Amino acid sequence: MSRQHVPGSMGTSASLILRIGQVIFSSASLLFMSLGVDFYSYTAFCFLVTVMGLVIPWSVTLALLDGYSILAKCPVRQLGILLVIVIGDWVLSILTLAAASSTAGIVDLLLRADESFCPPKYCSRYLLSSMLAFLSWFFSLGSSLFNLWLLPSL
Amino acid sequence: MSRQHVPGSMGTSASLILRIGQVIFSSASLLFMSLGVDFYSYTAFCFLVTVMGLVIPWSVTLALLDGYSILAKCPVRQLGILLVIVIGDWVLSILTLAAASSTAGIVDLLLRADESFCPPKYCSRYLLSSMLAFLSWFFSLGSSLFNLWLLPSL
Repeated sequence: MSRQHVPGSMGTSASLILRIGQVIFSSASLLFMSLGVDFYSYTAFCFLVTVMGLVIPWSVTLALLDGYSILAKCPVRQLGILLVIVIGDWVLSILTLAAASSTAGIVDLLLRADESFCPPKYCSRYLLSSMLAFLSWFFSLGSSLFNLWLLPSL
Repeated sequence: MSRQHVPGSMGTSASLILRIGQVIFSSASLLFMSLGVDFYSYTAFCFLVTVMGLVIPWSVTLALLDGYSILAKCPVRQLGILLVIVIGDWVLSILTLAAASSTAGIVDLLLRADESFCPPKYCSRYLLSSMLAFLSWFFSLGSSLFNLWLLPSL
């Protein structure tokens, strides 16, 4: 198998699926965290909302680029562009992991505290949001690993 | 510069410095978290202690291996061994980041809560421990990136 056709790297359908997964999970995480919940009282939740607000436009842009590459049968192979994509992916995946785990740490603490501190209705939404952020991180790690694998062949 | 002499990869003095940094920071983080503080009441703190307990023996072993390689002038260049080291480094660096950020999230929450919840003496130790864990993650990320960079040349 040629390095130019690594499944999951930019311009393949596997990459498009990974990007769509990132968009879906990070949007769902953002929605569960921000709608109807007072997330701004915890720094970690604000951080999660900020990071998800960065991940969504990034993944949407790259999903569009992937879709275009597949339709035009012209995958991105310029070293400069790919380097920007790989670095961006890595930075965002590190930030997503940090946000997801700090949220998970706080959710765990709130679930053990008494109910006045965190009504069950809110807590389950926080929990769901942090699980979705972990899923989004998983997809993001996949994209960045596959693109990193492609890099030495260019 | 040949790929065989990437500074920071296994068997160079830069790698030895990175490993010693990991050992120092993760030991300090473990000591501040575990001595005289009731860390077991928070899941995230237990997770940090567990992860640090994994990172310390791993880094000590690799620091010894690095020291031996430098003295014997015989760097490790077997693909199998290097692959195990890279994968182990990545897994531990991801775990360290997750533990450090969940601890940081909880410390931030405790610092905002009232003092009955977290006496200042304890809180500053938790904070210091999470900062040291971030430093340990930084060094661990360095090692794993440099070794990953060496991998395609083997």
